[in-house]
Amino acid sequence: MCQVWGMKSTSILLFIFLSLKVSAQNNDSATIRKIFTEALTAGKSYDQLRQLCNIGPRLSGSENAAKAVEWGKKVMEEYDFDTVYLQEVMVPHWVRGDKEIFVPEKAGSRSTPPKYLNICALGGSIGTPEKGIRSSVIEVKQFEDLEKLGRKQIEGKIVFFNRPMDPTHITTFPAYGGAVNQRGSGAVMAAKYGAVAVIVRSMSLALDDFPHTGAMRYDDSITKIPAAAISTNGAEYLSELIKLDPEAKFTLTLSCQTLPDVKSYNVIGEIKGSQNPGEILVVGGHLDSWDLGEGAHDDGAGCVQSIEALRLFKALKIKPVRTLRAVLFMNEENGLRGGKKYAELAKANKEKHILAIESDAGGFAPRGFDADCTDEQLKKLKDYLQILTPYGIHFMEKGGSGADIGPLKDGTVALLGLRPESQRYFDYHHAASDTFDKVNKRELELGGAAMAAILYLISENGW
Amino acid sequence: MCQVWGMKSTSILLFIFLSLKVSAQNNDSATIRKIFTEALTAGKSYDQLRQLCNIGPRLSGSENAAKAVEWGKKVMEEYDFDTVYLQEVMVPHWVRGDKEIFVPEKAGSRSTPPKYLNICALGGSIGTPEKGIRSSVIEVKQFEDLEKLGRKQIEGKIVFFNRPMDPTHITTFPAYGGAVNQRGSGAVMAAKYGAVAVIVRSMSLALDDFPHTGAMRYDDSITKIPAAAISTNGAEYLSELIKLDPEAKFTLTLSCQTLPDVKSYNVIGEIKGSQNPGEILVVGGHLDSWDLGEGAHDDGAGCVQSIEALRLFKALKIKPVRTLRAVLFMNEENGLRGGKKYAELAKANKEKHILAIESDAGGFAPRGFDADCTDEQLKKLKDYLQILTPYGIHFMEKGGSGADIGPLKDGTVALLGLRPESQRYFDYHHAASDTFDKVNKRELELGGAAMAAILYLISENGW
Repeated sequence: MCQVWGMKSTSILLFIFLSLKVSAQNNDSATIRKIFTEALTAGKSYDQLRQLCNIGPRLSGSENAAKAVEWGKKVMEEYDFDTVYLQEVMVPHWVRGDKEIFVPEKAGSRSTPPKYLNICALGGSIGTPEKGIRSSVIEVKQFEDLEKLGRKQIEGKIVFFNRPMDPTHITTFPAYGGAVNQRGSGAVMAAKYGAVAVIVRSMSLALDDFPHTGAMRYDDSITKIPAAAISTNGAEYLSELIKLDPEAKFTLTLSCQTLPDVKSYNVIGEIKGSQNPGEILVVGGHLDSWDLGEGAHDDGAGCVQSIEALRLFKALKIKPVRTLRAVLFMNEENGLRGGKKYAELAKANKEKHILAIESDAGGFAPRGFDADCTDEQLKKLKDYLQILTPYGIHFMEKGGSGADIGPLKDGTVALLGLRPESQRYFDYHHAASDTFDKVNKRELELGGAAMAAILYLISENGW
Repeated sequence: MCQVWGMKSTSILLFIFLSLKVSAQNNDSATIRKIFTEALTAGKSYDQLRQLCNIGPRLSGSENAAKAVEWGKKVMEEYDFDTVYLQEVMVPHWVRGDKEIFVPEKAGSRSTPPKYLNICALGGSIGTPEKGIRSSVIEVKQFEDLEKLGRKQIEGKIVFFNRPMDPTHITTFPAYGGAVNQRGSGAVMAAKYGAVAVIVRSMSLALDDFPHTGAMRYDDSITKIPAAAISTNGAEYLSELIKLDPEAKFTLTLSCQTLPDVKSYNVIGEIKGSQNPGEILVVGGHLDSWDLGEGAHDDGAGCVQSIEALRLFKALKIKPVRTLRAVLFMNEENGLRGGKKYAELAKANKEKHILAIESDAGGFAPRGFDADCTDEQLKKLKDYLQILTPYGIHFMEKGGSGADIGPLKDGTVALLGLRPESQRYFDYHHAASDTFDKVNKRELELGGAAMAAILYLISENGW
């Protein structure tokens, strides 16, 4: 009897528990529906992105970057977030200068270099002497090719790294990951063998005339040589030219230089948690961009989506249980100083972060999230897919998150990266073509709403 | 003992069965990897689409449509499909003419109509008298509004249907479905109350200056009145104008007309099945397009993806177990004559179709398939998601398929619609902006490969 009663009471408790759980899930579902409806009918991120892109490119240390900081602060203040503040950080200041030319000596009757040979200096590169560097060009695909060729064949030459991104990857980020060492370390590797400069095939799967810049690094123990990216069409053309005449001479002229560091800022807006204000959830993107284009997809999109994620809470009068922060990180592109500073101060101030989400993969239609987190956290995130799939969020996978939030990693905070449809991203990435018109309003809004949905679920329910 | 032995033998048989199943799955996986690799490294669909778009718009009955038929046949012959043939079908021949103007009487100092009032005739509309139709405009959102207003307020006026697509839908096709009756039936509904013409808000979620055409229908028992679409910006502007002055007069001039039917063709390419040639699997899109733009996403993409799906089998030397057909249907947009003819002849010739897949939702990155099929077929398709998810195919859901393959429905053939990312589709749909440059090469290729993958799995394994 006792046992039967015990079973009954267990059943009743289980029933109550399950009912409460179903009811909480229904509440969650209803709120998430409201979040998406607000984003798609009264969303502000598209207009904000237009404003941000109108400032122009926002390379760290530039006047435009300073304007973007003011813009971000003003926008979040106007949305009446509880606190909006700046977080000081010193950033590198590299400038492109006004000259970047790569021209074959035998340009024939052309008075200007062929557009196919469009180049741009890689970020951080030193310039060339004013009259340029004149040399023949030697093509390699892999760093191992340098070793095979040896100093004798490389010394005094311009090394041309021409390994395309691997098109067989289904999403494009692994293809980028497999090629980008040419850009980041090509100059150091080639200089070891006496190269005088490097030209790197642009990191893009598309064949077009845009050179794509991006960060490169020097090693203080190795001679510094200038480095430039060439458009993918240019890379194909250059490869043909030097096959026809391996001795053909080219002149590379770059006038870029690195100036002293500049004071800049992360921009932070916060909505205080109503019950657990000491537990912090971050959503962010980076405010700096490369100096070509408008930094629309990279990463204006992530900034306006992050602001929008918090604005959605305000607009829907949702008081979050835990504290929410939108962080516009400075200097992701060539230093990560903002991300490091944010984590450093979070640690110094003994802040407890339980979640950080970054959007830095373009303002395209969201498809899922990659998560750098514990197995328990991943399980919980996967359980939420049931609620999120109707909004086009189809996966939660273990993986990387975002560069800016990476420094927060401490084994307890869950780090998430928004993963939008990736096919078009590298067509525009770091190039003059990364402009506002490439962003679709609804795709942008869906990404912001998806991040707000995760913020809501974890803020409300914890881990 | 016997029983134990029985269990053992059952276990052994089960083991063999499961091993064979796993091995078959591994073969399937390996082949599908090859299909995607071929599509992404040596795919032809993007170049084919460029050729097709270069022909120009391909409205049924037009010279361009005839050129597109020749093009499709030639391409499939060059790929050396086993059989390539045309299937005759009579199609409607509507022409836009050279005049479509919608101009407010008080255009002020402007010598040309404001671009915001950009209109285009709806496909199938009659023209206006040469000097146009001059009248005031009355705005409605729903057909029920006509009943409420009554003949007294509508008679002699131009009815303006201005219900936007509902932006709260997460994918865009349901939003289209909820608004398109204004375009299809608006003229008939308004004419019942004595309207003299209709202006319909373009079926687009974006605010821009492109009017979007599309099919409209008359009812022989109701007076035929002219019908035009206005750009979404134009709709907003017009709504303001007539709020300011409900009596303001506008003149609508259209010179479109319907000419006698024209002989045209479905274009069909076939690879004969090596073991079950009598079982047919179709993959298709429609070759006709509206007469604005280039019909790139709608539905040049579906045509080149369908051809590509079969070409992938040839390129990889896969001899399909069952017969594969790529069908370029004629006249989906304003008659569906091609789709009906194909099904009619299939029935007359007692052909057994087991699967038909249509791509007619744009050449964007594929996300899944909707399936109009039996529960058993759906279960099998869902089981294949395990193999397809790494390629970005995340769902198989019960739903519609495609207009052209619809007439094949007989309760046994499975009808599938490719479902790409939908956000951008209606930005271009039926408008002058549906041009080749809006299509991303890899997104197009992934869609063709996804269809080839399904063809392969069902051709190889049956239902």
